[in-house]
Amino acid sequence: MERLFTYDDNHWMRLALQEARLAFEQGEVPIGAVVVANNKPIAQTHNQVELLKDPTAHAELLAITAATEALGGKYLTDCTLYVTLEPCIMCIGALRWAQIGHIVYGASDPKGGYNRWAPLAPHPKTKITAGILEREAQKLLTTFFQQRR
Amino acid sequence: MERLFTYDDNHWMRLALQEARLAFEQGEVPIGAVVVANNKPIAQTHNQVELLKDPTAHAELLAITAATEALGGKYLTDCTLYVTLEPCIMCIGALRWAQIGHIVYGASDPKGGYNRWAPLAPHPKTKITAGILEREAQKLLTTFFQQRR
Repeated sequence: MERLFTYDDNHWMRLALQEARLAFEQGEVPIGAVVVANNKPIAQTHNQVELLKDPTAHAELLAITAATEALGGKYLTDCTLYVTLEPCIMCIGALRWAQIGHIVYGASDPKGGYNRWAPLAPHPKTKITAGILEREAQKLLTTFFQQRR
Repeated sequence: MERLFTYDDNHWMRLALQEARLAFEQGEVPIGAVVVANNKPIAQTHNQVELLKDPTAHAELLAITAATEALGGKYLTDCTLYVTLEPCIMCIGALRWAQIGHIVYGASDPKGGYNRWAPLAPHPKTKITAGILEREAQKLLTTFFQQRR
């Protein structure tokens, strides 16, 4: 059944933040992602680098793999990815290959984010929105790293 | 038992080219990769984007996942990755996270390679060697795309 209304960016970012909190509880750097197609979530993932001992297991990469599997194709042109932190080079490269329609991220990552290393990396057709629930995402990361010291 | 000699770069790149040929036979863009640790191959992979319908299934990403699983840790500091084509942004980002010791690639990729988009992306401790069996790798790619036209 078609939904009669459209959720806003804050709604989906809250879902991504829930995923980030799951990561936090599991001792992972708290980053979460959600892929939305037609106003429905088709992938919800969080960082699993430590669990899988795999440096490629970022929330975004896991989300792309899950979303393409859900859709049965390698492109995500009509999808939006919500992610709590600005994607790194690896993830922005993957999102380019997927030709994702829209990227919405929360906190900026001046050290490891793609804007520092490869600002022209996003696919030219990808819309990008930054700063959605930025403070919540950043607070989660700050708390995580403070506890680790 | 320790081997009494060390294989050279051409030896391992020939193995990566064999992987690329497997990809070719499966209708995948022919790119292959091998990860070597202590003079032994610990991962041999090829591009599986079409088979898995997953844009992240590049030879290098699959190789990193397989190699970290083989070693039981998320870093590949003492490993060399042989790959038949210059890595893209996604893959160089992943290799940075893995802190791979050495990257050896065959053909250059002026359009999609990391040197165009993010030349500073490799980890500062990663050694890079380009052009090993470059012509063989390039010929495989050229033949593949000619057949597709």
